[in-house]
Amino acid sequence: VSVTAAAGFVASGVHARIRREKKDLAIVRSLPRATGAAMWTQNRVQAAPVLVSKAHLELAQPQAVVINSGVANALTGERGELDALCTAAEAARLLDLDAEEVLVLSTGVIGAPLPLDRVRSGLVDAAAALSVEGGADAADAILTTDTHPKTAVAHGPGFTVGGMAKGSGMIHPDLATMLAVVTTDYPLPEGEAIDFLRPAVDGSFNTISVDGECSTNDAVVLLSSGAAAVERTPANDEAFVLALRRVCKELAAQIVADGEGATLVAEIAVTGAASDSEARAIARRIATSPLVKTALFGRDANWGRILAAAGSAPHNGGYAHVDPSRLSLSWNGTAVLVDGTPQHVEPDVESGRAEIALDLGLGDAAASYLTSDLSYEYVRINAEYRS
Amino acid sequence: VSVTAAAGFVASGVHARIRREKKDLAIVRSLPRATGAAMWTQNRVQAAPVLVSKAHLELAQPQAVVINSGVANALTGERGELDALCTAAEAARLLDLDAEEVLVLSTGVIGAPLPLDRVRSGLVDAAAALSVEGGADAADAILTTDTHPKTAVAHGPGFTVGGMAKGSGMIHPDLATMLAVVTTDYPLPEGEAIDFLRPAVDGSFNTISVDGECSTNDAVVLLSSGAAAVERTPANDEAFVLALRRVCKELAAQIVADGEGATLVAEIAVTGAASDSEARAIARRIATSPLVKTALFGRDANWGRILAAAGSAPHNGGYAHVDPSRLSLSWNGTAVLVDGTPQHVEPDVESGRAEIALDLGLGDAAASYLTSDLSYEYVRINAEYRS
Repeated sequence: VSVTAAAGFVASGVHARIRREKKDLAIVRSLPRATGAAMWTQNRVQAAPVLVSKAHLELAQPQAVVINSGVANALTGERGELDALCTAAEAARLLDLDAEEVLVLSTGVIGAPLPLDRVRSGLVDAAAALSVEGGADAADAILTTDTHPKTAVAHGPGFTVGGMAKGSGMIHPDLATMLAVVTTDYPLPEGEAIDFLRPAVDGSFNTISVDGECSTNDAVVLLSSGAAAVERTPANDEAFVLALRRVCKELAAQIVADGEGATLVAEIAVTGAASDSEARAIARRIATSPLVKTALFGRDANWGRILAAAGSAPHNGGYAHVDPSRLSLSWNGTAVLVDGTPQHVEPDVESGRAEIALDLGLGDAAASYLTSDLSYEYVRINAEYRS
Repeated sequence: VSVTAAAGFVASGVHARIRREKKDLAIVRSLPRATGAAMWTQNRVQAAPVLVSKAHLELAQPQAVVINSGVANALTGERGELDALCTAAEAARLLDLDAEEVLVLSTGVIGAPLPLDRVRSGLVDAAAALSVEGGADAADAILTTDTHPKTAVAHGPGFTVGGMAKGSGMIHPDLATMLAVVTTDYPLPEGEAIDFLRPAVDGSFNTISVDGECSTNDAVVLLSSGAAAVERTPANDEAFVLALRRVCKELAAQIVADGEGATLVAEIAVTGAASDSEARAIARRIATSPLVKTALFGRDANWGRILAAAGSAPHNGGYAHVDPSRLSLSWNGTAVLVDGTPQHVEPDVESGRAEIALDLGLGDAAASYLTSDLSYEYVRINAEYRS
């Protein structure tokens, strides 16, 4: 599993002492000449490694990715950009690449400077440790408040897609403190990787939410080694699309399930919306509502909160269209509201999963979100994060 | 204090057994012929009493307001509207008014039917109890998870403005499960009350947030008895504007301070924005960020979270404009970031109040918000609300 499942990739994860106790520095590298693409946080405040990596992608095809946890290197001014550049340059030197061929990703505390000396010595260790077996160490080294590594693999006819991800707080559409590296040996010509990556991310990482936050550092990187003995054909392209989507969706689902303090995963499925964007706005509003999420934590099928959230979904400067008399809602398969009329039944809510299906009765558009509940533990983790 | 401070008003609050243990039904009435106006939740899902009261306001000047706590009468279908109509009609009968002259407000659980028999017998008691001394009972009867009543009074030359409010969760712009009734003896001709009420609400109730939620039931009502022995003049109008704003701001501040589980009140002041709407969007985004609010609870001046939130403030389908290199932030008076450069100082954070001032360095627009922290207690209250 993980980023070395596809042929042509090596990886490693080491303890560079950026964090006190756990592995905190990973490298993923393609041995054949790779092609690749990435998607980045839409936050207006972007971390130094995001800025540096975006610039590198303009100049060259990515051959390796360096990821550190513990320090986000965000809001660190000019020094932060120099630190990210130095990280890429040092990794390139060790890997015999150009600096522009290295992407750097960081996750952790915002505003603190990257301890560059530790990163440098860690890179020496990490470069020496690169191996096909190193995927698990890499998946471990990128974690922050995650409670376990997130990896996924899918196979197509003659090729493989593998990935790792981190993220458990600040998880939200537009890639919020979430890092993922997905590798494949399926051959992708330069410039085409982004066309495969974008829809896969939109259908996976961009439809999950833990706390509605959007980070300064989020990134999803796709690297193709082209090492599979397979031809590009339309049929194989289609198989690759499916495999890539599956890996992205699995990683996204693992992130929600490991959401900070999460005791439950809820799928919010909105149907019957007047437009796609309204369906997404409503699903997103429900998935991020503190009142909905505390009710989920309390195993309380307080569906009124779902509808109150649905009725206040920001859209085009107002709220998305909802007609209370047309709303139907089912909770874990029990219809609690039909065409605006409460059914006075109590759904079963004790499990660790909630399936909430809201039909707006207005049109054909649909959207769904995965979200977690809001627990005491979420508060504890985030109130004490720096202490 | 409260809604009977201004001349011409009587009020009462009784226990109608809608809730188990506390007063749950209030009436506020003007004895002289009153004029008035109201502002309502912008939620697309509006409770039955909101729909009924809006219709009544189209037909007549409001003379009395009936408010129940415990049941929101929202998402209750046709029966809910009939229940709200019956409540108004019964109150009108007891008070010798037309039904259209009565506004009905409800707050509490969504989706549960109003126990109309109890409301009816409670109205008899409440009508009999109406008195100038009843303002405190009324302020008590409208509370739900609030820990104490919220009242405010301001005096102008020869007139008085008094008000009561409830709200501690679902508190957010666009009036989110927040009810307020403001009364005055300053004379307001029919149709003009709204012109005074709207700016007062925009500058007070619409710039507070406890949890970013927007309820199905929110309302702010202004009633004028005209009983003050004072002439309308431009100078007096101006004094009334100030008194009305003061009462609304005081009630709003009390709501935030009593926010569910709140241990701290934070003022988020955004300056230097490119436009007013962007200033508001950014202040609002910060004020509603779970990561910011948990940091506030942890007394952690984690200013990176402020900036990450600022960079992801929804605006016109994208994010409001922010330039990281121009950002300056002070926390309780300590400059932690100046023109994008961290100052590596730790502000004092132990008090129950946080003053967070973010300058965007882009323009002249400004906005501010009051918000509370996100604590274990918020989670407990909202996970257990129905049980």
